[in-house]
Amino acid sequence: MTRTPGTGSAGLPWTALLRPLHCDVAVVGVPFDSGVTYRPGARFGPAHVRAGSRLLRPYHPGLDVEPFAVQQVADAGDIACNPFDIQEAIGQIQRAADGLLADSGCLVAIGGDHTIALPLLRAAHHLWGPVALLHFDAHLDTWDTYFGAPYTHGTPFRRASEEGLLRRDRSVHVGTRGPLYAPTDLTDDADLGFQVIDAMTVGHDGPDAIAERIRGQVGDAPLYVSVDIDVLDPAHAPGTGTPEAGGLSSRELLAILRGLAARDTAEHPAARIVGVDVVEIAPAYDHAEITAIAAAHVIYELLSVLAVGRTG
Amino acid sequence: MTRTPGTGSAGLPWTALLRPLHCDVAVVGVPFDSGVTYRPGARFGPAHVRAGSRLLRPYHPGLDVEPFAVQQVADAGDIACNPFDIQEAIGQIQRAADGLLADSGCLVAIGGDHTIALPLLRAAHHLWGPVALLHFDAHLDTWDTYFGAPYTHGTPFRRASEEGLLRRDRSVHVGTRGPLYAPTDLTDDADLGFQVIDAMTVGHDGPDAIAERIRGQVGDAPLYVSVDIDVLDPAHAPGTGTPEAGGLSSRELLAILRGLAARDTAEHPAARIVGVDVVEIAPAYDHAEITAIAAAHVIYELLSVLAVGRTG
Amino acid sequence: MTRTPGTGSAGLPWTALLRPLHCDVAVVGVPFDSGVTYRPGARFGPAHVRAGSRLLRPYHPGLDVEPFAVQQVADAGDIACNPFDIQEAIGQIQRAADGLLADSGCLVAIGGDHTIALPLLRAAHHLWGPVALLHFDAHLDTWDTYFGAPYTHGTPFRRASEEGLLRRDRSVHVGTRGPLYAPTDLTDDADLGFQVIDAMTVGHDGPDAIAERIRGQVGDAPLYVSVDIDVLDPAHAPGTGTPEAGGLSSRELLAILRGLAARDTAEHPAARIVGVDVVEIAPAYDHAEITAIAAAHVIYELLSVLAVGRTG
Amino acid sequence: MTRTPGTGSAGLPWTALLRPLHCDVAVVGVPFDSGVTYRPGARFGPAHVRAGSRLLRPYHPGLDVEPFAVQQVADAGDIACNPFDIQEAIGQIQRAADGLLADSGCLVAIGGDHTIALPLLRAAHHLWGPVALLHFDAHLDTWDTYFGAPYTHGTPFRRASEEGLLRRDRSVHVGTRGPLYAPTDLTDDADLGFQVIDAMTVGHDGPDAIAERIRGQVGDAPLYVSVDIDVLDPAHAPGTGTPEAGGLSSRELLAILRGLAARDTAEHPAARIVGVDVVEIAPAYDHAEITAIAAAHVIYELLSVLAVGRTG
Amino acid sequence: MTRTPGTGSAGLPWTALLRPLHCDVAVVGVPFDSGVTYRPGARFGPAHVRAGSRLLRPYHPGLDVEPFAVQQVADAGDIACNPFDIQEAIGQIQRAADGLLADSGCLVAIGGDHTIALPLLRAAHHLWGPVALLHFDAHLDTWDTYFGAPYTHGTPFRRASEEGLLRRDRSVHVGTRGPLYAPTDLTDDADLGFQVIDAMTVGHDGPDAIAERIRGQVGDAPLYVSVDIDVLDPAHAPGTGTPEAGGLSSRELLAILRGLAARDTAEHPAARIVGVDVVEIAPAYDHAEITAIAAAHVIYELLSVLAVGRTG
Amino acid sequence: MTRTPGTGSAGLPWTALLRPLHCDVAVVGVPFDSGVTYRPGARFGPAHVRAGSRLLRPYHPGLDVEPFAVQQVADAGDIACNPFDIQEAIGQIQRAADGLLADSGCLVAIGGDHTIALPLLRAAHHLWGPVALLHFDAHLDTWDTYFGAPYTHGTPFRRASEEGLLRRDRSVHVGTRGPLYAPTDLTDDADLGFQVIDAMTVGHDGPDAIAERIRGQVGDAPLYVSVDIDVLDPAHAPGTGTPEAGGLSSRELLAILRGLAARDTAEHPAARIVGVDVVEIAPAYDHAEITAIAAAHVIYELLSVLAVGRTG
Repeated sequence: MTRTPGTGSAGLPWTALLRPLHCDVAVVGVPFDSGVTYRPGARFGPAHVRAGSRLLRPYHPGLDVEPFAVQQVADAGDIACNPFDIQEAIGQIQRAADGLLADSGCLVAIGGDHTIALPLLRAAHHLWGPVALLHFDAHLDTWDTYFGAPYTHGTPFRRASEEGLLRRDRSVHVGTRGPLYAPTDLTDDADLGFQVIDAMTVGHDGPDAIAERIRGQVGDAPLYVSVDIDVLDPAHAPGTGTPEAGGLSSRELLAILRGLAARDTAEHPAARIVGVDVVEIAPAYDHAEITAIAAAHVIYELLSVLAVGRTG
Repeated sequence: MTRTPGTGSAGLPWTALLRPLHCDVAVVGVPFDSGVTYRPGARFGPAHVRAGSRLLRPYHPGLDVEPFAVQQVADAGDIACNPFDIQEAIGQIQRAADGLLADSGCLVAIGGDHTIALPLLRAAHHLWGPVALLHFDAHLDTWDTYFGAPYTHGTPFRRASEEGLLRRDRSVHVGTRGPLYAPTDLTDDADLGFQVIDAMTVGHDGPDAIAERIRGQVGDAPLYVSVDIDVLDPAHAPGTGTPEAGGLSSRELLAILRGLAARDTAEHPAARIVGVDVVEIAPAYDHAEITAIAAAHVIYELLSVLAVGRTG
Repeated sequence: MTRTPGTGSAGLPWTALLRPLHCDVAVVGVPFDSGVTYRPGARFGPAHVRAGSRLLRPYHPGLDVEPFAVQQVADAGDIACNPFDIQEAIGQIQRAADGLLADSGCLVAIGGDHTIALPLLRAAHHLWGPVALLHFDAHLDTWDTYFGAPYTHGTPFRRASEEGLLRRDRSVHVGTRGPLYAPTDLTDDADLGFQVIDAMTVGHDGPDAIAERIRGQVGDAPLYVSVDIDVLDPAHAPGTGTPEAGGLSSRELLAILRGLAARDTAEHPAARIVGVDVVEIAPAYDHAEITAIAAAHVIYELLSVLAVGRTG
Repeated sequence: MTRTPGTGSAGLPWTALLRPLHCDVAVVGVPFDSGVTYRPGARFGPAHVRAGSRLLRPYHPGLDVEPFAVQQVADAGDIACNPFDIQEAIGQIQRAADGLLADSGCLVAIGGDHTIALPLLRAAHHLWGPVALLHFDAHLDTWDTYFGAPYTHGTPFRRASEEGLLRRDRSVHVGTRGPLYAPTDLTDDADLGFQVIDAMTVGHDGPDAIAERIRGQVGDAPLYVSVDIDVLDPAHAPGTGTPEAGGLSSRELLAILRGLAARDTAEHPAARIVGVDVVEIAPAYDHAEITAIAAAHVIYELLSVLAVGRTG
Repeated sequence: MTRTPGTGSAGLPWTALLRPLHCDVAVVGVPFDSGVTYRPGARFGPAHVRAGSRLLRPYHPGLDVEPFAVQQVADAGDIACNPFDIQEAIGQIQRAADGLLADSGCLVAIGGDHTIALPLLRAAHHLWGPVALLHFDAHLDTWDTYFGAPYTHGTPFRRASEEGLLRRDRSVHVGTRGPLYAPTDLTDDADLGFQVIDAMTVGHDGPDAIAERIRGQVGDAPLYVSVDIDVLDPAHAPGTGTPEAGGLSSRELLAILRGLAARDTAEHPAARIVGVDVVEIAPAYDHAEITAIAAAHVIYELLSVLAVGRTG
Repeated sequence: MTRTPGTGSAGLPWTALLRPLHCDVAVVGVPFDSGVTYRPGARFGPAHVRAGSRLLRPYHPGLDVEPFAVQQVADAGDIACNPFDIQEAIGQIQRAADGLLADSGCLVAIGGDHTIALPLLRAAHHLWGPVALLHFDAHLDTWDTYFGAPYTHGTPFRRASEEGLLRRDRSVHVGTRGPLYAPTDLTDDADLGFQVIDAMTVGHDGPDAIAERIRGQVGDAPLYVSVDIDVLDPAHAPGTGTPEAGGLSSRELLAILRGLAARDTAEHPAARIVGVDVVEIAPAYDHAEITAIAAAHVIYELLSVLAVGRTG
């Protein structure tokens, strides 16, 4: 008797009923999308990404590692979030994340919209203090407010920076593109301490150079990796809320992430990932699960980078 | 008042830029869906229904009336609503509806989710006092709270009843089906004064009998017609948020609405419509515009019933 | 005569048809849609309906007949039509139809848009003189011109009536619904000699009564059956160009057609079908082939009615 | 912390890890589709139907019963089946079903293709001896072989009848339609003891009369209900493998099933359901989950009929 | 001039009702697709691209310019075109374009199919004499006739060249690929004065080199940019009529266009754009608006290049 | 030999193929997908790829060759395969392939799933002895068994190698990516004699270098080219059964294939293709035919490489 397709990422054991949960990495869904400004639907992202993970197998040939063998990874189910009250939802997510981090060494969250990065960063900050942020996204997500609301999917990293959750000298956006509201969007962002590697630059320089540049920027600070799936081109990730033309291919994104596993060198220490979110997967706009599969591979790649770090 | 993507229904003149707006019927979009409990996306409903209205022509052969000739109908654009604060959005909708009703005799709103019925009923109540409610829906929408929130798409008619906006002896749900939370859902609903004609009964008795029963129930009270598109079977309206199997066909719904145009008789006075909403159209789940076309035809039918009333 | 879209890789030769083609019934595709006023795409209808016919089996249990055993039915491929010149295309279709009718007793055409009915009726008229028209459609298709053009998918039956191709006392529209341009649409149509059985009436009276009424109307005149697939509700036929809510179910349509096979009675002689078209299938708007399957079943039903007539 | 959407039908507790499983009704997925002759994909049916069941609530107003309160229902996960060896898969399903029936009083299987009915009927026969079969389907499924294969989705009920698993005087097909291979399909089927109520008859007589006729036919024999979702019209269930036009609406099917809950009368004893399968849901052809939702409602209706039987 | 469904691109003010229209750049829809040889549907392109432009914001960070601030851009609605008479439609488009160019300095047309380029080039020629043509497309579009028709979506640039509308020494196709009818397609094209940079070369040399080569070719001649969206790979633009594998990514196309904004150098003067069309967007084949979004970004990029030219 | 799905209405006779078929290259469909482990549906691949080939034209400008003029290419229809018995189906395919190869010099097969490569390689081996294998795929397809089954879509090349059908020193996988079961997957594969050029390497080195490396590897051995369409990224080929993120673009794949046409050099002899399969196209997951079009272009490219070889 097996369990149903659609449950447990990558065939991981369900452990939600067996709290307390002890593991090295906890994967958790955050089905919250009340912070979106355009197409909603990311609330169904966790189930969709889990379905897209059904084909994943245990061994990563590119990094020569078995990510589920060298570390214990568990699917912790989903965090219940109030869809009608953003601030209450943020509190719910933060408390759940604190609890999960007490039981496990690292949290990998599947969104949900990008609003969820703020409570996840707060929880990370509780354990490790300010973290470097490696942020893949078409957008900066450092706007101030939307409709006067301070907590939305376009504002988490401004709030995080204001709250001191981030290493301002160690954070970087990758893959941004498309129009902005004003030149001050860029200058405000720079004032918050972010570097920007836009999508055109990724295309021009290639993934290897970008990965090296990122490693130089984030250094050996504890690293939080936040992947808005819209960093991918709409061709590679149609199932998202605020798509912009001209994005990365899934191969480019995976290559950059894989580059984070490079061993320490004098110049560039190995990345030390302490938290991950992969967000903004909106299944109603997906086709043939291609966005879900891309997201599942991104998570698998990051789990493998984590695994390499343990075996280093 | 901002305008949304999508233009005037059925080729009606845009008049939003020419305030004050004087017309007999104002059609207005309400792109708000932060009150949904399951699939979001009705925020894009107004543009979608307008697109689905492009094939409508001026003459209604079934009722022998030209609804745009015997009354002035104008598309008033969309009401801007804060997606991050339900109560503020309700206030915005209510103020806009009050303003539009000052300029026009009747408001036809395109949702958006069913939360919007509450401020629209408040505005109707300002002019006409308690109204009879004719409510087409798979669901009762008289639940008390969701996640503790009193204002959502599942609660507008309980709130409306509590606020005294409705004629408790003159209101009726049509087309309900599917499971409920508890037997008290039905008894609470009855305590609020509602009659229920469920979808099985519509199938059993046929549209003519149902229309006659409705006319008997609502009498000559000022009538607010609220159509949740999920009253239709998912086959006829896949593009909605909380579909339930076993619903009405579009022909049944149109036939019932058409039956409201019957002239006064001793037993059943003619229906006197003073407000309309058609809600819960979620384009991301629609196919080939069939939900949009159904919604556009529902609005056209109701505009024609209104026109017959003027020529009676 | 060209080959059907969907056959032969990269235009490689399929062994050509061996003209002259001798058979009782010839099925032919007419991939022409330059006469449409709204959504185009019916040019791909013939290939789509053929694909939707793959599951059909040889025996019709409802009529107890094997339509391919009691008569010889052949697929004659597609008629090549100039997409850039409507009048030339009409001439091409007419010449091809004349040729096919010289070789076979009856022509069943798969559209393409409704423009093609005119040349097909001309060819039928060459053989049988004025024919009764049994026309299933959401629309009357007796408009005069569009953009000044006399030959479009909205005008074939006015042209046909003007040209004397139809028995004005023996023709009927079934399934009309939706708004018209003006009351004169109906009076003009009546002046051309048409009876109208609208979609609401089909719902009210049921298929058996409708079939009987049709048999009374068409009598024993040679009968041309023209089925615009939009006579079906958009739920049953999303893949079409000008959908209208409130249509027939596929079961209702099949039941009415089946009713044409009833044997002679004193009052109602058996229908004598001499030509068929099934048109306006637009694959780009179809889903899971449901429109194609409905159209294939309609053709199969009519072939079976024809077969019953031969065995009567 | 909640569990992910997509797991557990109707929010039932996962119990697969807690064997032995003691419950009144076990719901189990059978992700096997190697027996199909046309469109494959029903292997993903169980996950899809579970997703479509997320909106189900605890109380059935039409039958005034709480199906999860008056009986213990558990989701037993999925049965692992070899996709490359039909006979081995049949054995796997049969052994699992035997095991589940040892722990629970009734098995509700979600397919998978119709091949699975044979091993499920064998398991039912072990407990109750020959059962009455109430079979909803567009097809008879009593063909002999396909490509020489005796065990496919078109043959289970011939095999079952040959093996003596069925009450030949108490079995009935409902909803058949579309062409057959030969007149002998019908006579063979009758020889196997089946009554046939075709789809046209359902449309003509209405669900109440059909339900009564079924109750008369099946009597008080232990009843196995097998629902091929293609009994629904393609408009209501596009997500299936061998669709036929002219089918039932979801409201008609639910009404007939609900009619099974009628209390004993002198003429018609109450139905005594001992096994259920709902099969042939092929998600790749579904849209907006409408097939999944229909299937979930069918299961809910049958669970409610079962519950009424317990409370009778 | 009528307006179509869909509203102002990027929230620009509708000005069609306020003629005469005075602006620097007029955006106009041309909903004509009767010139297509394969999949129709580009008639709905203007509304679809406008919908895809809703997320555009005012500031272009890559070019550091605010395209709506440094120049006045207005949406002029759609040009009404006769779908049944190509030559009449060409006349209608040409007259409308002449009128719009009298009021504005530059016209940006949204197709519609590529037939529309001919009347637009005629209008451009009236003002500026022969123009350089920068043509992005999978196809050469310099064929002679289709079905004997001289004016179709495959022939505009042969006609334009024959009419002397183009600078034969300054024109270039970019992105061609896929099979041709004969080697003479290429030699004829060269005889008409075109350079060809095929899609494989774009992949091999990269966007920067291509942009430089284009600037060298077109020089300082008045430049008309014609973008058939099928220059993009079907992955990036599924919603088009004649897709060919092996195309450009949206990032490559945007990068080449951005390269046109490079300032004057001795070798390569700045591009001087005087007209733009973006054509062949067929919404029925699009998914999740990815083609619409790509087209909207292409227009935004070109508006920004225009803006840079004004601020140079 | 049966006819292709998609031809002939309702199974009506198409004038049969006139065996024996004499040609240089025979294209044949193999509608078999009972060997798949995940998403089925490739049984409909041949009809889908033929539909996607309708736009192909006779002249290949990149290779300056007319592939249908310099060699005779014929479409041989489809091979009938038993879907219920893999080993019988393999025998059917092998016998048909032997027959076709007796009449033609080269076989190009359209799958179907990858199981079919084994009988096709056996047939090739009968004529040419061990062949070099150039295998494009996301997966190695050299696994041993699935569910104990030795003949599936994941195992053909292990079986082929074991049977001595392949030149172990001349075979190469291109485009592999995604997780494996264990490190031994790679070492086993190497033991079978395969070289591996994974997808990341293709991205890093570019198509020209990869084509040269392949030519070096395969040398002048008779070459069998097997293309699993999932070698393409899901963005370029969503319509397949086991998609993996991070794949090739269609332009990259076409460029590599085109590179096989390079003339002999001292170091790298020209490729000598003797057999081709293009497999795993699953139409139910395709959108707007983009996978079909990619597959059709791949076949056209290979036919053109073959043609260049004849004219060399």
